[in-house]
Amino acid sequence: MYRSRPHGNLDDSALSFLSSVYDDHNLLYYDIIGSQAHVVMLYEVGILSKNELKKILKSTTSLLNEASLLKEFGNSSSEDIHELVESAIIKMTDIESGGKMHTARSRNDQVVLDMRMKVRDDINNICQNLIILISSIIKRAEENMDSIMPMYTHLQHAQLGVFSHYLLSYAYSLIRDFDRFYELYDRVNCSPLGACAIGGSSINIDRERVSSMLGFSGLIYNSIDATSSRDSLIEFASNSLICMLNLCRVSEDLILWSTSEFGFLSLDDRFSSSSSVMPQKKNPDPLEIIRGKTGLANGIFQSISSIMKGLPSGYSRDLQEIKPSLWKMSSLLQDSLLITDGIIKTFNVNKKRMYEISSESYAISLDIAEQLIKKKNISFRSSHKLVGGLVDCAVKKGNISLNKLSIDDLSQVLTNTDFLNYGITPNDLYVLIKDVTPENSINYRITKGSPNKQEQLEMLLFLNRKIDEYQKKCKLRIDSLRDKISELGFTVEKHIDDPS
Amino acid sequence: MYRSRPHGNLDDSALSFLSSVYDDHNLLYYDIIGSQAHVVMLYEVGILSKNELKKILKSTTSLLNEASLLKEFGNSSSEDIHELVESAIIKMTDIESGGKMHTARSRNDQVVLDMRMKVRDDINNICQNLIILISSIIKRAEENMDSIMPMYTHLQHAQLGVFSHYLLSYAYSLIRDFDRFYELYDRVNCSPLGACAIGGSSINIDRERVSSMLGFSGLIYNSIDATSSRDSLIEFASNSLICMLNLCRVSEDLILWSTSEFGFLSLDDRFSSSSSVMPQKKNPDPLEIIRGKTGLANGIFQSISSIMKGLPSGYSRDLQEIKPSLWKMSSLLQDSLLITDGIIKTFNVNKKRMYEISSESYAISLDIAEQLIKKKNISFRSSHKLVGGLVDCAVKKGNISLNKLSIDDLSQVLTNTDFLNYGITPNDLYVLIKDVTPENSINYRITKGSPNKQEQLEMLLFLNRKIDEYQKKCKLRIDSLRDKISELGFTVEKHIDDPS
Amino acid sequence: MYRSRPHGNLDDSALSFLSSVYDDHNLLYYDIIGSQAHVVMLYEVGILSKNELKKILKSTTSLLNEASLLKEFGNSSSEDIHELVESAIIKMTDIESGGKMHTARSRNDQVVLDMRMKVRDDINNICQNLIILISSIIKRAEENMDSIMPMYTHLQHAQLGVFSHYLLSYAYSLIRDFDRFYELYDRVNCSPLGACAIGGSSINIDRERVSSMLGFSGLIYNSIDATSSRDSLIEFASNSLICMLNLCRVSEDLILWSTSEFGFLSLDDRFSSSSSVMPQKKNPDPLEIIRGKTGLANGIFQSISSIMKGLPSGYSRDLQEIKPSLWKMSSLLQDSLLITDGIIKTFNVNKKRMYEISSESYAISLDIAEQLIKKKNISFRSSHKLVGGLVDCAVKKGNISLNKLSIDDLSQVLTNTDFLNYGITPNDLYVLIKDVTPENSINYRITKGSPNKQEQLEMLLFLNRKIDEYQKKCKLRIDSLRDKISELGFTVEKHIDDPS
Amino acid sequence: MYRSRPHGNLDDSALSFLSSVYDDHNLLYYDIIGSQAHVVMLYEVGILSKNELKKILKSTTSLLNEASLLKEFGNSSSEDIHELVESAIIKMTDIESGGKMHTARSRNDQVVLDMRMKVRDDINNICQNLIILISSIIKRAEENMDSIMPMYTHLQHAQLGVFSHYLLSYAYSLIRDFDRFYELYDRVNCSPLGACAIGGSSINIDRERVSSMLGFSGLIYNSIDATSSRDSLIEFASNSLICMLNLCRVSEDLILWSTSEFGFLSLDDRFSSSSSVMPQKKNPDPLEIIRGKTGLANGIFQSISSIMKGLPSGYSRDLQEIKPSLWKMSSLLQDSLLITDGIIKTFNVNKKRMYEISSESYAISLDIAEQLIKKKNISFRSSHKLVGGLVDCAVKKGNISLNKLSIDDLSQVLTNTDFLNYGITPNDLYVLIKDVTPENSINYRITKGSPNKQEQLEMLLFLNRKIDEYQKKCKLRIDSLRDKISELGFTVEKHIDDPS
Repeated sequence: MYRSRPHGNLDDSALSFLSSVYDDHNLLYYDIIGSQAHVVMLYEVGILSKNELKKILKSTTSLLNEASLLKEFGNSSSEDIHELVESAIIKMTDIESGGKMHTARSRNDQVVLDMRMKVRDDINNICQNLIILISSIIKRAEENMDSIMPMYTHLQHAQLGVFSHYLLSYAYSLIRDFDRFYELYDRVNCSPLGACAIGGSSINIDRERVSSMLGFSGLIYNSIDATSSRDSLIEFASNSLICMLNLCRVSEDLILWSTSEFGFLSLDDRFSSSSSVMPQKKNPDPLEIIRGKTGLANGIFQSISSIMKGLPSGYSRDLQEIKPSLWKMSSLLQDSLLITDGIIKTFNVNKKRMYEISSESYAISLDIAEQLIKKKNISFRSSHKLVGGLVDCAVKKGNISLNKLSIDDLSQVLTNTDFLNYGITPNDLYVLIKDVTPENSINYRITKGSPNKQEQLEMLLFLNRKIDEYQKKCKLRIDSLRDKISELGFTVEKHIDDPS
Repeated sequence: MYRSRPHGNLDDSALSFLSSVYDDHNLLYYDIIGSQAHVVMLYEVGILSKNELKKILKSTTSLLNEASLLKEFGNSSSEDIHELVESAIIKMTDIESGGKMHTARSRNDQVVLDMRMKVRDDINNICQNLIILISSIIKRAEENMDSIMPMYTHLQHAQLGVFSHYLLSYAYSLIRDFDRFYELYDRVNCSPLGACAIGGSSINIDRERVSSMLGFSGLIYNSIDATSSRDSLIEFASNSLICMLNLCRVSEDLILWSTSEFGFLSLDDRFSSSSSVMPQKKNPDPLEIIRGKTGLANGIFQSISSIMKGLPSGYSRDLQEIKPSLWKMSSLLQDSLLITDGIIKTFNVNKKRMYEISSESYAISLDIAEQLIKKKNISFRSSHKLVGGLVDCAVKKGNISLNKLSIDDLSQVLTNTDFLNYGITPNDLYVLIKDVTPENSINYRITKGSPNKQEQLEMLLFLNRKIDEYQKKCKLRIDSLRDKISELGFTVEKHIDDPS
Repeated sequence: MYRSRPHGNLDDSALSFLSSVYDDHNLLYYDIIGSQAHVVMLYEVGILSKNELKKILKSTTSLLNEASLLKEFGNSSSEDIHELVESAIIKMTDIESGGKMHTARSRNDQVVLDMRMKVRDDINNICQNLIILISSIIKRAEENMDSIMPMYTHLQHAQLGVFSHYLLSYAYSLIRDFDRFYELYDRVNCSPLGACAIGGSSINIDRERVSSMLGFSGLIYNSIDATSSRDSLIEFASNSLICMLNLCRVSEDLILWSTSEFGFLSLDDRFSSSSSVMPQKKNPDPLEIIRGKTGLANGIFQSISSIMKGLPSGYSRDLQEIKPSLWKMSSLLQDSLLITDGIIKTFNVNKKRMYEISSESYAISLDIAEQLIKKKNISFRSSHKLVGGLVDCAVKKGNISLNKLSIDDLSQVLTNTDFLNYGITPNDLYVLIKDVTPENSINYRITKGSPNKQEQLEMLLFLNRKIDEYQKKCKLRIDSLRDKISELGFTVEKHIDDPS
Repeated sequence: MYRSRPHGNLDDSALSFLSSVYDDHNLLYYDIIGSQAHVVMLYEVGILSKNELKKILKSTTSLLNEASLLKEFGNSSSEDIHELVESAIIKMTDIESGGKMHTARSRNDQVVLDMRMKVRDDINNICQNLIILISSIIKRAEENMDSIMPMYTHLQHAQLGVFSHYLLSYAYSLIRDFDRFYELYDRVNCSPLGACAIGGSSINIDRERVSSMLGFSGLIYNSIDATSSRDSLIEFASNSLICMLNLCRVSEDLILWSTSEFGFLSLDDRFSSSSSVMPQKKNPDPLEIIRGKTGLANGIFQSISSIMKGLPSGYSRDLQEIKPSLWKMSSLLQDSLLITDGIIKTFNVNKKRMYEISSESYAISLDIAEQLIKKKNISFRSSHKLVGGLVDCAVKKGNISLNKLSIDDLSQVLTNTDFLNYGITPNDLYVLIKDVTPENSINYRITKGSPNKQEQLEMLLFLNRKIDEYQKKCKLRIDSLRDKISELGFTVEKHIDDPS
């Protein structure tokens, strides 16, 4: 449609190579309402007559209601959604009416407008999904404050903890994800329209009026910046990736804990897959897919940043290639949040197995070392060495628990590790070790943010308050945007129905 | 269909999250002919009766001819193409016939089989596309052996050259791309079938028979390796990426040379895009898309390698996520080869502009320095300094050409750069500079692989021979594979038609 | 030093493979002052005696003043900086004093503490560097509001503009970079110390006291979160990468404009490189390195996110590998900001060349089309077509300027493009085209954010105000942090000098 | 030294930003011997006098023996190793001798020469390391052909296998890594020297003579290709990354199997790390670092490919930035091969624990299903369903083993799953299940490449033969290269000692 200078059509293979129409279906809705605001403004500043405005608005409304009209009227050789929509509207009206729609506008500012409208909606959705997931996590944490289990570093037993403590750690990281998306919104929610191809227009359009009709909080002012920059959209991609990395950590934990060797959790059947050949199988496929999609997200982000690298200012067609990557990133995150929520809500916790492994674990070693410090006033480094000796002895006796060590064993360890002159008797040690039951291991842990019951309650309190606050903030923003878009709808209808 | 152990169905959102059916349409054909070979072998070793074999083969043939049957018969809750096909066949036959198809087979070996069959076909296509593109490049090079133009380093004029020299450099890099793909084929063309889930089977199947029927050159032997490894497929992705990087260099050159400032080339209108708003525009969009898709390819490769990182042995569902990335990589390379070919074949070369810029360029400086060495026996370092002085003088006089320097200027330079005692007179310099015309600059360049005419002919000779050789190698391989697959088709028909 | 359970030493090759000591030199300072705050608190809660405290603080002060002591006293087989420092301090004091330093602390919380202290300093530096660079850009923009030049899309002439407009577009993007880093600070500036290995401690330490002494604004509360999460550090990496992508765009523009074909700019000799062999060369190497380092930054980011993918909760040694990547990212950004500043401050602008190319450019086509709309009331689509015809005619006549078209040419175009009935005479067109001089092209462009002089002034006003505000915010934050760290220094001295 | 055109020096910060001297230490050796071959050839074709040649060769020999001379004589403002070496040699000789060394050569071809010489050496080292590692794996496999253990898919028990089967699967993948590197060698081992800056030279140099002296197998012919292409070096990076991904899989398996929950392996103390705070810890840090370095390798590869994306033909300074990435990739792979070898050689296998878990595992389900097919002639799909019922029953009875199911249980299952009419009695089932002991599970598995003992022997035979063959191929190549380089050394000495 636009081929004023090049003669003839694009080569067929070139057209299909260039075309983004398929990937642009996500933008159709935004492209149309963006056009509605643009033409309403064009009418208000005197570029369109009332009659022209009515014709164009009517056809946009038809397209919104019946997307199939696009196929019927749109130019089949369109390279993108913008051209497709404009060509359809021209055909549904006439060249002198529809042909004015693109006045003082270019696909270069239009595509950024559409992308920003879509991304701000995605941000709002993600924020809501995050709130839902965090709420589910909090609920499961409330049920599992006494589910004693080993805590792992390097996948080896480190200290004892409680299952709720893990769950709450997930919640804290998702809170930060929320913050990142919430803050980004303002950078995204700026209107580029009116930047035109790259250098603005000599037509007296009103950029701020369009911006306001579409619910933006302001302009992305400089016209080169408006059409060339993608940094806030890349930030959307990186926020999404960071959130996926957080979900991936959850998945990895749950996959390990669902093995028969760990046996702490079993996923609900609704979130388990079977095998085509092994009848016994119950596989944690949804968790593996989240992990896989995190790898995918790494690559999607890289696609975007690698495409941007080396581009000069001004629209280059390369920029088209970041669109499908952005949409894929957005949808994989939204899906993964939903699925993680389903899994967290429904898994079964095997508290008995958790306790069993905890009660035989050397993960109480640090507790013992700290008790020695408190009761026997030796340095941490010495205490570390002595308890190392205890573990060594227990391992040599066939990996027995520390509380199975006899007075004789303890006496031997004190001798071997040169602790005879520290005023610690074998009996002292014996009593001290027996005292460090799994329950006491948790009770004694008193620092802020530890698995202690009081601390679990503290964190739950904090997170519940946070979620309330976030729900309100989110609602406010979404409602305000919805109001603006409704208002635009009324304006459009009013104009269409205007008998004048 | 397989849910023996988990009760009830997958959660709907989980199913859609897990399902690869959409991405697997690329594998349908391979899945079916793989199954045909498998059941023929099962019959031959006595697992299937003749009647069962016939039923199954008939339904596979129906599916091959009419893919819509899949939708009609296949289980709508299938997680992937393998389950979909098997469920359709069971429904088209009966559980005791179709239910035997999956004997001694798992989706874990089956999916690798399908992928390897698709990738080997893709390799053959890419090899053929490479030959076509190299041939086009050679043709344009033959036309442009006398198109003198500047050669650039750091985008600044370096030495003078000819346009064919650039084109031939592209051909050489594509030759190496061919080699990489050609060598890879043998690593890909091995059959994993019979590895079953991960540890083989107690059924007396004949892995080598299936492998041979499907045109493989051998087995991927160890059953864990067969189901867990993706290294040769990653190599396919990296070969593709490297080839894209080579094409990207071509694109970047052509984009720059098509600017009005360079003006060396103009793309054919069939490969140029227009602007929605600027009537004068003729943009090199297809080249930009190739550059953009190279960025995309960077990310696709990263998706694959990031998904693989951290996985244990044995099939994990994460592996599913590399499939769409592989197919996208393969198709974007094939498209880009085709488009590059179209562009190269059709662009117009502005020899006049190339010559104009060449004749005013300081790119003859090194030639002059080398003439000084040859004629005046001074060291290269001294010569470099003296010619630097000449350029400096010419720049100060308003960026005039070196051959516009007067005898006085030259005398001044010799004084300023302390070259009075080197036995070089201003007149010597004057004559020497005048002698280095653009034509002589090229003629004097005598090293192997330089832009000299004789060397251009040498390289054309080499590349033409190479292309002949590659065409033959390629044809041999493709024919042999086609024969095997035809033979399988005959075997299938023969069994179906067998009245016994 | 810590090897209580494994017997004997690490294999030598394993030690050198594991060791991060070399990469950790960036953390030494932070490790020591972090330890100072920790032991002061340990004293305050009664774990250390005054005497023990004094001994430890003295040795930390010695290490701060003379890093070579580390080599003298530190355990040569240390795997990281934390072990090296602790072992040195134990040796400089004694096991029962220095051996208490690590009470209720683990390398797992310590390393995150050190990283967060370094990154918050880096953020402050980057924010300051951004302010400096933006100020330089503003200054050069003020000088170039009348430097008329073509604006490019797809590297083809799009519309006419002014050089300041490009510069200001860079400033706007760097403003957003500032915002990103500024907002991130609060997420980074939280203390993990006291989380211990993963599950806190039974020692009555005061996490908030340490946090406050070190200038943190609060705790990273949950102990698993504190030791496992790296999301805010990944965000630092992604902010850095986004900023590099913005700088890369600047570099790409400047590289192109410095070619002899464009000729708009020449870099100052202090920022130009020469050739070892071509005497005439003056290459824009620093700009190429910035572009290259942007590619590098893409990979560095990917290293970090790929390392994180698939890790379970709790410290895993993999996390060590993200440290050198983070430091490299940080320093390459800081260097690139500095170099870009040097280049922007010193390049020479060739206004004459810019104007020359502008005055022959078809980039005024859209202006002409818009004048037609305003004066002849035809639709934009029609106007686009008519001007396309004008350009076509001018191209065919040998790429002459539009204002060189004769009345006859214009008449011909009106006929060919079917515009005879639109009330536009050849003379109308002739007058209208002549009127669109480069100067008028800019003057007529009246939309907000366009290259119009008034708009340039508007943007300068905005940016200057912004920079003032940012300078104040930055100073406040840096001063407050410096005060806290000084205060810690006084506390340390006071304890050391305390005669009691 | 080369600054003929730009005046004055580089800005200090720009110099340090640009300089690659630090990263280039890897190339020093290659740079010097490359220069030796170059000057010997220059003498042979008459550019250098005997005396000049001797002076230069003497100083190169001094630099080889005493690198510190570089600091003493080399220009401190050198931007790279090539300039540093040349400036030192000029100072050690004189400008009219040393100043001739760079005749008909540029840093643009020189840097590629150095890189190719280093990479071919690295390839040979990696090939040797691969052979060593594969040999160690084979040895451990020979010891573990009867170590029955579960095989995992989705980290869940799939089938029973033997430990050697896993080890052999690693060996097979490393064999392919060897092939990749071995094939690449020929693409790398081509000489670019003589391509000069980009377009060759008018000096009558002999490219083939230099190539032969340096042990290359031929030229990289076209001069643009020789200086612009990096594809074979990217291929080196991708081969390295693929090999790391293979090692990463090994690491992930070993990390899991070393947890106390799996308990199959314990690493030797020489390859285990301790904790600074938890005395009981014995962590698999070297394995985690390999996994972490695989993530790092992902990013390093991405740095390289992202730097290349968007570059035009001809040397651009961006290319400098790929050098440190390549060296880091190469050394991390070589280190990881060595460490993996140390770990594999020394870990302890807990066969008892492996057997214990195997004997209670549902991983025999598929074996049972296949026995049913063979003995009762039901379809695989039916058999799958029936055995699913068995597992279901056993799970409900408290996760008891299948061989603990009573006749009553079996009868119940047959009823519930509608298998009463299939001619299978509860007793049939009972006998069949009892028969599938862990040992029989392995014995019955008869397909090629399965864990069956006979198959383990088959694979060992194949791999041992392969290793013999590879050792020979490797030795031949390395010896031939060493001979060439020695010969060059003799030539150099001969010239130096020549009294004429």
